Amino acid sequence: MTRPWNFSAGPAVLPEAVLRQVQEELLDWHGCGASVMEMSHRGREFGEILSTAEHELRALAGIPPSYRILFLQGGATLQFSQVPLNLLRPDGNGRSADYIVTGAWSRKAYREAARLRKVRCAASTEADGEPSDGFVRLPEPGQAVRNDQAAYLHVCTNETIHGVEIHDDGYFGGAVPVVADMSSHILSRPFDVTRYGLIYAGAQKNIGPAGVTVVIIRDDLIGELRDDLPTALDYRIAADNGSMFNTPPTFAIYVAGLVFGWLRDQGGLATIAARNAEKAELLYGAIDQSALYRNPVESACRSRMNVPFTLQQEGLDDAFLSGARERGLLGLKGHKSVGGMRASLYNAMPIEGVRALVDFLADFERRHA
Amino acid sequence: MTRPWNFSAGPAVLPEAVLRQVQEELLDWHGCGASVMEMSHRGREFGEILSTAEHELRALAGIPPSYRILFLQGGATLQFSQVPLNLLRPDGNGRSADYIVTGAWSRKAYREAARLRKVRCAASTEADGEPSDGFVRLPEPGQAVRNDQAAYLHVCTNETIHGVEIHDDGYFGGAVPVVADMSSHILSRPFDVTRYGLIYAGAQKNIGPAGVTVVIIRDDLIGELRDDLPTALDYRIAADNGSMFNTPPTFAIYVAGLVFGWLRDQGGLATIAARNAEKAELLYGAIDQSALYRNPVESACRSRMNVPFTLQQEGLDDAFLSGARERGLLGLKGHKSVGGMRASLYNAMPIEGVRALVDFLADFERRHA
Repeated sequence: MTRPWNFSAGPAVLPEAVLRQVQEELLDWHGCGASVMEMSHRGREFGEILSTAEHELRALAGIPPSYRILFLQGGATLQFSQVPLNLLRPDGNGRSADYIVTGAWSRKAYREAARLRKVRCAASTEADGEPSDGFVRLPEPGQAVRNDQAAYLHVCTNETIHGVEIHDDGYFGGAVPVVADMSSHILSRPFDVTRYGLIYAGAQKNIGPAGVTVVIIRDDLIGELRDDLPTALDYRIAADNGSMFNTPPTFAIYVAGLVFGWLRDQGGLATIAARNAEKAELLYGAIDQSALYRNPVESACRSRMNVPFTLQQEGLDDAFLSGARERGLLGLKGHKSVGGMRASLYNAMPIEGVRALVDFLADFERRHA
Repeated sequence: MTRPWNFSAGPAVLPEAVLRQVQEELLDWHGCGASVMEMSHRGREFGEILSTAEHELRALAGIPPSYRILFLQGGATLQFSQVPLNLLRPDGNGRSADYIVTGAWSRKAYREAARLRKVRCAASTEADGEPSDGFVRLPEPGQAVRNDQAAYLHVCTNETIHGVEIHDDGYFGGAVPVVADMSSHILSRPFDVTRYGLIYAGAQKNIGPAGVTVVIIRDDLIGELRDDLPTALDYRIAADNGSMFNTPPTFAIYVAGLVFGWLRDQGGLATIAARNAEKAELLYGAIDQSALYRNPVESACRSRMNVPFTLQQEGLDDAFLSGARERGLLGLKGHKSVGGMRASLYNAMPIEGVRALVDFLADFERRHA
């Protein structure tokens, strides 16, 4: 029996092999007599789970020793606050930060930072009134009005809602550390960690269950202990305590570790990237050659993970979604802010799922054209 | 086959029936074709899971409509910051808050609040140099130096490390709203929500897996939208968005909901309280009648959930712990800050487990006296 194909944008499909292992070990992890959910986070067993997860991630993504890996809580949304709170002082200290706005998520990150600290929008592709708010392209790197004294430059390397992806780690490189929200495409391809000062990602797309957030931060950006921040939001505290200042989300970290191991077993990020490219080409190809479906994003920055598309004929959306569901294709409804459809093609989505979707697209178009 | 008895202080034992249901549903929740971990938090299925969890908790604890239930992240530790940040203004606005210190956790809550806002210690049982820092009793209610203009009075109703519990919801009642950290004894007995302004609890003791925090807050304390707080820490935002301002820890909420259902099936909190009293009496009785074991807490405020004890003969700790492990008694090592042993008797620990522990205590004493 095959499970339905789950195209949800997040929380999202996980590798079936990982789910089966979780199921198998659920009442008794490695013969210790307890579920991972029931283990003290200070015990030897969870210590092993945490350090395995960290080592697997470090090996997978080639993260140098000069970067710390933190497992935090609160999702990318809490990072929207935590990044400026940690990297900028309340008085500004003469410094601000630059934000590049390329979709709904980087816009949120920018707005939240602007509430808390002095920051600036260095470039935006937003155009009110246009479809998708105009978020269909990347600014040219030269169009960004940079401040070389900025504490950091913030980007969202994959916009989950608008389907705009930065494929080149050096695209916005410059004089200041780049802080990247990689939530929805981390580990979808090899990436050069050294081109970034700080990378963060909510787990619930390509890493594991919702409830754990991965932060990869260069040592020198961790900074000194702060007296103006909630202790639980201070990167220094998290780093010095090995992500265990307080009880971490143990079960979510365990599942994330299994996903990292699964990626290693698949052949690592280069293999996964080739598969992801093939999946994305298949779907964009089907959309572009049809008269019914449309994706508005410029081809150079189309996301390989999140493919939003609309039906060019009014009133068909409900029939599309229910027809898809009948064929075992789930989670295709687009984000409420932009409407239409969206297919998310995370690492755990096999090419067979994309083939099934493409077949359905053609079928549905034939029946309704 | 029986599982070992897990006395861990948290993350802690969960009801076996709940774990089996989680295992059963792990790849396919109610025939929807996806794991709970893979579901969009905006979908109908998770909506049902979240609202069931909330309704079960509301019914179980008799939470009136004038209180909101929030499912947050970050544990009690983040609440140590979030409570003062939300309930006190940066400028103080002429108001402060009072803290009662009865153990390590209320001391942490007080110290964190004091870093961020103007607060005061209204009473403390700490006595440096004494065993257990002197945390072996409660202050008399009259000993607390109160400020009737305080925004709130903070207490920790069960000190997980020191084993000091407040058994009476009105014990510190007075003119100002009581804010209670109930992490390690919530749902262990019926409690009168209306005696509190705000209750918070990390899930990983009596509720579910680590990674979700329950906050029960009286409507009038939620306050207005704040412009000085990280959005993700504002109770108003969490309340207005039904705990879904951003992706909640979906799987942890699902397991918590199953635990609430299990408690209902057991007969509710009064039944559970009777069982917990029986379990605690059994263990304290065994400790008190022995010459080898000792618990220093005054009997009126001994915790029914966390029973710390020491061996009165030097050098036996390791033999005790390894002997216990051989008998399938896990998680008995005391917190590193106080040493010794600790047995946590949360709701999911059956009386059979406590009997096995008491038998071992007697056996070990016989062999080593």
